[in-house]
Amino acid sequence: MKASQFFISTLKEAPADAEIVSHKLMLRAGFIKRLGAGIYNYMPMGLRVIRKVEHIIREEMNRAGAVELLMPVVQPAELWQETGRFDKMGPELLRVKDRHERDFIIQPTSEEVITDIARQELRSYKQLPKNFYHIQTKFRDERRPRFGVMRGREFTMKDAYSFDRDVAAAGKSYDAMYAAYCAIFDRLGLQYRAVAADTGAIGGDRSHEFQVIAETGEDAIVYCPTSSYAANIELAESVALLPQRAAAAQALEKTPTPGKSTCEDVAELLGLPLARTVKSLVLATDECNEQGDIVKATVWLLLVRGDHALNEVKAGKLDGLKAGYRFATAAEIDDHFGCKPGYLGPIGLKKPVKVIADRTVANMSDFVCGANDADFHFTGVNWGRDLPEPDLVADIRNAVAGDPSPDGQGVLAIQRGIEVGHVFYLGTKYSKAMNATYLDESGKPQLMEMGCYGIGVTRILGAAIEQNHDERGIVWPDSIAPFTVVVCPIGYDRNAEVKAAADTLHDRLAALGIDVLLDDRGERPGAMFADWELIGVPHRLVLSDRGLKEGQVEYQGRRDAAATKVAWADAVAHLQNRLSPGS
Amino acid sequence: MKASQFFISTLKEAPADAEIVSHKLMLRAGFIKRLGAGIYNYMPMGLRVIRKVEHIIREEMNRAGAVELLMPVVQPAELWQETGRFDKMGPELLRVKDRHERDFIIQPTSEEVITDIARQELRSYKQLPKNFYHIQTKFRDERRPRFGVMRGREFTMKDAYSFDRDVAAAGKSYDAMYAAYCAIFDRLGLQYRAVAADTGAIGGDRSHEFQVIAETGEDAIVYCPTSSYAANIELAESVALLPQRAAAAQALEKTPTPGKSTCEDVAELLGLPLARTVKSLVLATDECNEQGDIVKATVWLLLVRGDHALNEVKAGKLDGLKAGYRFATAAEIDDHFGCKPGYLGPIGLKKPVKVIADRTVANMSDFVCGANDADFHFTGVNWGRDLPEPDLVADIRNAVAGDPSPDGQGVLAIQRGIEVGHVFYLGTKYSKAMNATYLDESGKPQLMEMGCYGIGVTRILGAAIEQNHDERGIVWPDSIAPFTVVVCPIGYDRNAEVKAAADTLHDRLAALGIDVLLDDRGERPGAMFADWELIGVPHRLVLSDRGLKEGQVEYQGRRDAAATKVAWADAVAHLQNRLSPGS
Repeated sequence: MKASQFFISTLKEAPADAEIVSHKLMLRAGFIKRLGAGIYNYMPMGLRVIRKVEHIIREEMNRAGAVELLMPVVQPAELWQETGRFDKMGPELLRVKDRHERDFIIQPTSEEVITDIARQELRSYKQLPKNFYHIQTKFRDERRPRFGVMRGREFTMKDAYSFDRDVAAAGKSYDAMYAAYCAIFDRLGLQYRAVAADTGAIGGDRSHEFQVIAETGEDAIVYCPTSSYAANIELAESVALLPQRAAAAQALEKTPTPGKSTCEDVAELLGLPLARTVKSLVLATDECNEQGDIVKATVWLLLVRGDHALNEVKAGKLDGLKAGYRFATAAEIDDHFGCKPGYLGPIGLKKPVKVIADRTVANMSDFVCGANDADFHFTGVNWGRDLPEPDLVADIRNAVAGDPSPDGQGVLAIQRGIEVGHVFYLGTKYSKAMNATYLDESGKPQLMEMGCYGIGVTRILGAAIEQNHDERGIVWPDSIAPFTVVVCPIGYDRNAEVKAAADTLHDRLAALGIDVLLDDRGERPGAMFADWELIGVPHRLVLSDRGLKEGQVEYQGRRDAAATKVAWADAVAHLQNRLSPGS
Repeated sequence: MKASQFFISTLKEAPADAEIVSHKLMLRAGFIKRLGAGIYNYMPMGLRVIRKVEHIIREEMNRAGAVELLMPVVQPAELWQETGRFDKMGPELLRVKDRHERDFIIQPTSEEVITDIARQELRSYKQLPKNFYHIQTKFRDERRPRFGVMRGREFTMKDAYSFDRDVAAAGKSYDAMYAAYCAIFDRLGLQYRAVAADTGAIGGDRSHEFQVIAETGEDAIVYCPTSSYAANIELAESVALLPQRAAAAQALEKTPTPGKSTCEDVAELLGLPLARTVKSLVLATDECNEQGDIVKATVWLLLVRGDHALNEVKAGKLDGLKAGYRFATAAEIDDHFGCKPGYLGPIGLKKPVKVIADRTVANMSDFVCGANDADFHFTGVNWGRDLPEPDLVADIRNAVAGDPSPDGQGVLAIQRGIEVGHVFYLGTKYSKAMNATYLDESGKPQLMEMGCYGIGVTRILGAAIEQNHDERGIVWPDSIAPFTVVVCPIGYDRNAEVKAAADTLHDRLAALGIDVLLDDRGERPGAMFADWELIGVPHRLVLSDRGLKEGQVEYQGRRDAAATKVAWADAVAHLQNRLSPGS
């Protein structure tokens, strides 16, 4: 293709509201154009990348036996009412009424619609397993859309849904999708990690996120470099850092700590390691009567080591908390502890609370905690001697780098990642709500076991750029670059030999099926090169009058420090050697 | 591909609410599945056709120099308010509020968004001409969605928008799109006609519809078989059927016609040809003051020959009516004619009205019309003698088959058609409303000249089926069939030789790039053949144990009356000879 038949629009500066590098570069390189908050036009350059990503996804999904269909963007509310999501989902679900005042939603996902299709179409065990997917426009009315395509409102997603006869078969479907996702992200040319993830309120008990590794990622990935262990921070298990509780060596002492309300401040004041302190967090749960009125509130004291952070997801899975918890009110805290936050602790309570100690805290001795008296802490605190054993010992903290891997195979490290894919075992959550059954061999109806599998197509553009860029612009992997090769003739508009050579080279590469663009705009070399480095085309061939007279062209890979002179006759072969396989 | 890796779902009977054949067949063959009124899931079989249609459109649009991008489904209201369409468009425009109560629309087209892009991106005459297109989901909240994909609410459309520096250049862009559309519909393998169309209220003065010929079409196409003249019924010019007015031969006579209120009844009663009668239609126009109150109503009498029909679009273009007209009220009719409808005419009015005569009526003599007296008509009516010449003579009727072609090159015929494409010269309607200008050579801002070009992608499926079906099902053109060839082995699941031969044949065809499906379901021949005839795959190869023993396979084209026995060794070549070029 020639640039004159295409549309290239680059900017020197990104608009001020672009906060992260991928957003800035996508705007500057003319991949997207803002239409509204979290809503973008995909300009011709950006759409080429989307199409290449979609093509790879489609090929691998088909190879894995999934079948493509297309479900609507605008979906009737009835099905969403069957599962309760029409009411349960928050304002991120865009609701709309048609001319007859009937309720519809703009789809954020399609569990309801696909389950409706499955319950009508998949009637016999002979039709299972089945995996349907579509690549379709989604909408989520984010409260605060930002970061360009990373947290947009309208976006393109591939979502697949598997239907199986039992848990074992569903596991196979899950594994097939996991493998397909690995194949997809391999082919996309991205560094990624599949990490075990929490299944949250959606249900089911098996879930992996596919995270593109990038320093700017919003998610923390916990992994073990010497084993296969990888989980997101919400799920990653934290073992006790102390193998067993040491005997008490210090006496309990109430120590003044005026104005020192954080563990850091207290440790500094007392000249102790932060790891000797214990942090108190106060939660509450409510019991309601049949009318929904709160009849009883229970207060919980959660204890983590001073250098650790509470993991709210883990806490939310514990007996007593899993039906839903909240942070305690100031009144509840005062009522139970007789003290303001900052000096709370498990000793000397006004009213009983349930005490949950993190695994590490449960093995600590001679530790420091709040004395339930403003400006005082206890030191030399020991379980059993100074306070009763905790009601519950559990993993309630975030893993940190250096923790032992829960598989015993090494030490954990933490990376930042951007979630671009998710495989999720749903169980019968939707099939039960919508009565999606098949008839087994004995003619008995059985609920279908389901899984769902998403890939954020447009988000991949942002993630790929966050991972692959430099000060000059984007560095696309070959497989998803808007063009694989750009031919840059110097003086195309005024030098007949350069023009002829450039046309020839372009045609030869195109004939080989290489996705090549000829820049026939007649731009000056500096501006032309800057454009293509910003846009991130991975391979460049420069033709100049002088070079051609010497029988040479210049090749430069986007990551190369300098150009390489290549004989005209070898130009195509040289380029082919530098292309990634399959691109 | 093998059937077991795909999803085939056929029905013996179509649901009762499917009214037209394409809707019935699409449901029965498993191409679509209803989700809500006018909203369909595109099942795997249907999506394959859509993708093939899109592919052909994309290739020809690109070849014509158009550049693909992607504009959002959910669009902010602001741009639509700039052009006034947010308020002007009726309830078919689906309006939605986001969580912050801001107005959005679900796009039915994208003139506003593309003009917004153009006014930002196309700054210089050097960047023109430019033609952007996208293939995107659209929504029109039809009051009464019906006929499946023919008048759905959510549908896929290709819409392109050209930007030019002046009218002459816009004409070239228009011609290029016209040619591209011909290439597209040729490749789609459909019988179609490009017909001149009315430009209506959208503005501009050049417009063609691309109509797929089908007896069941909603639109009437007027064309001349011996010339290139073709226009839709709204636009097709009707010449005077009488070259000049003959001299009066009869006296004016008031004749009793009790209970005969239609021209047909009157002609029968009087024993005269219908072509001797004149029909009276009474319209009214209102003049408003600055406050919008009606201050004056004018009554118009339109006269067409008894066997002709008023063309409301043509009437709406006449001076005095083009600002908007309505049918007169009973009170207005009584006030001006002193008579009830059925016996109205231009002679003996109570109050003056404006008389507009169709070209043919203006040349009639000795004609029959209502006498403005219930149960009476005048016969022997002659212009000038019995009543004044009409205030205006104009083309106000629908063309009928047998009319002389307005180009003088033959006689008009009428076909039914389904509109699947539209090319439209917009002029500066949108660029003016949104101030989309470019800088010309002298640095002066000039409004861009625009054109818009739509193709109803999903509608093409319905139109193709309306045109191509028989009592057994669909007959797809090769280029857009869900599969080009189906290999039907009899006893695939129980005969190793049949299985091996079928696999071999499938693999050979696939290796040649032919889109082939192997039916490995093990269905009985009758059910298997019925499925594929319903689905409409154009080429079928049947393998049986007996045939293979005789070294033969059976080939049957979907339109063939019977199968042809072909030697096994010649099967591929025989098939290739039967494929349409390019499929």
